[in-house]
Amino acid sequence: MAYIERMDTEAHISKAKLKFVRSLSQKKVREEESLFVIEGWRAIEDACAAGMKARMFLHTAEAAEDAHFRSVFTRAAGLSGETFEVSVRELETVTETVTPQGVAMVLPKFSHDLHGVLSRLNDEAPHIIVALDRVSEPGNAGTIIRTADWFGADLVLLSEESVGLFNPKVVRSTMGSLFHLPIIECARSADDAQSKTGFLDALRLCHEAGFSLFGADVNGAADLRTVRWPKKSLIVIGNEAHGLSSGTADVLDARIMIPKFGKAESLNAATAAAVMLGAVRLSQT
Amino acid sequence: MAYIERMDTEAHISKAKLKFVRSLSQKKVREEESLFVIEGWRAIEDACAAGMKARMFLHTAEAAEDAHFRSVFTRAAGLSGETFEVSVRELETVTETVTPQGVAMVLPKFSHDLHGVLSRLNDEAPHIIVALDRVSEPGNAGTIIRTADWFGADLVLLSEESVGLFNPKVVRSTMGSLFHLPIIECARSADDAQSKTGFLDALRLCHEAGFSLFGADVNGAADLRTVRWPKKSLIVIGNEAHGLSSGTADVLDARIMIPKFGKAESLNAATAAAVMLGAVRLSQT
Repeated sequence: MAYIERMDTEAHISKAKLKFVRSLSQKKVREEESLFVIEGWRAIEDACAAGMKARMFLHTAEAAEDAHFRSVFTRAAGLSGETFEVSVRELETVTETVTPQGVAMVLPKFSHDLHGVLSRLNDEAPHIIVALDRVSEPGNAGTIIRTADWFGADLVLLSEESVGLFNPKVVRSTMGSLFHLPIIECARSADDAQSKTGFLDALRLCHEAGFSLFGADVNGAADLRTVRWPKKSLIVIGNEAHGLSSGTADVLDARIMIPKFGKAESLNAATAAAVMLGAVRLSQT
Repeated sequence: MAYIERMDTEAHISKAKLKFVRSLSQKKVREEESLFVIEGWRAIEDACAAGMKARMFLHTAEAAEDAHFRSVFTRAAGLSGETFEVSVRELETVTETVTPQGVAMVLPKFSHDLHGVLSRLNDEAPHIIVALDRVSEPGNAGTIIRTADWFGADLVLLSEESVGLFNPKVVRSTMGSLFHLPIIECARSADDAQSKTGFLDALRLCHEAGFSLFGADVNGAADLRTVRWPKKSLIVIGNEAHGLSSGTADVLDARIMIPKFGKAESLNAATAAAVMLGAVRLSQT
């Protein structure tokens, strides 16, 4: 058995397979294939810990010899349908970073069921949901997911027009958090709507489940310092340039303004999310 | 007079001058020449409002015709030693963004005097200083400066090993805030030290001026929720991977930990800064 494992691990990837992995940098291909790519030891460790079954595990010869990550390597190879050795140069062609850590993985896209997530919430504990309403910059979306994870949010919702969860830059800037908490991409099109919940419907369902809906809004009427956060609070973060969409604004309980003391025209979207999430969570506990 | 203005404005930039502006993307050249480049209408408007005298103002033919920015254009040309028309393609070679808004400006680097800034503080009002200790990612440094501006910080200090203020990515991500509040780059080398204050000396001077020194530290002993922020609070943000430097840690009054409720290994540096600054400012007011 050790012999066979070794054979599997040492097979070099074919040009066709490498090209296929590279094509997953395109959104269209990710959607058709329902696959995405992660890179680096930490993300792979997090994916394994979340019990993800990978399609492929790619590693350089050097990564296979890295004693520090030996157990992650073994686990990753064990959870992957196929394992291939690649050159550093080949790996660079399929990853976002210029110097990836010698490992990448092709995973099936995944989702969570909104009804399931909401029904599992414990009514005694405080809860936070974060909803991204047309957040378009991948680094912002990923950073907000990471921040939501840090503060123990129960769920992140991504609206139709937000950047997709499986965009490589989003994946990378979550720093593994996409495997830590439920994240739901809401319907983008009529086709999608048959299987996915639309963003506004999702907000309404959260409201029916007892959540108060708050939006971060530079022109909001409610000063962050005066808000008494309910035990179930949902925070909507809007588009970097245009803020909350009008449909979203209509279903909110309040629009919250982070008071400004200086001259900056606005806060970065991920920054505003961090200030809001910190304020909610630290006041809830 | 209208005729002469028009002549100045319509002079096309020479290849040599364009090459010179392009060379300012290199840190070494920025230091030798003591110049840096900004781009986009908002940054230029902020620079003009701050009374900056520019070395050069570059604009496309289209930007010169933009009725919406007519007054900014006139002011920018008036405050600049030389004004040149450039093609869209030429402008792209000297700016960070792929599609700049048709305007860029070459400005003299500037600094502030720490003693002067500290002596001008009003003892009645609450004050915040933000200090970046080896923050190396330009987007983080710029975003923290923008956040510090929003929350009305009085001063930002950059340590020797932090990314420089005039790095084009830092400049761009401040979104104009580098012109809104005093920012001091501390000494990087023995040469510098003759004219600039070292980072630790700057922290000590702030302490002598009545500031309590707090560091954001994932392993800090003090829970953010338990801190009573003094009227003069200085917040140090450490390196993205390595946190606070040991020299800095020695001069702090306390290391503050942002409590974690989920599974993320860390917060992004700009996110941690935002949570801390929000907590300080909103509790001070």
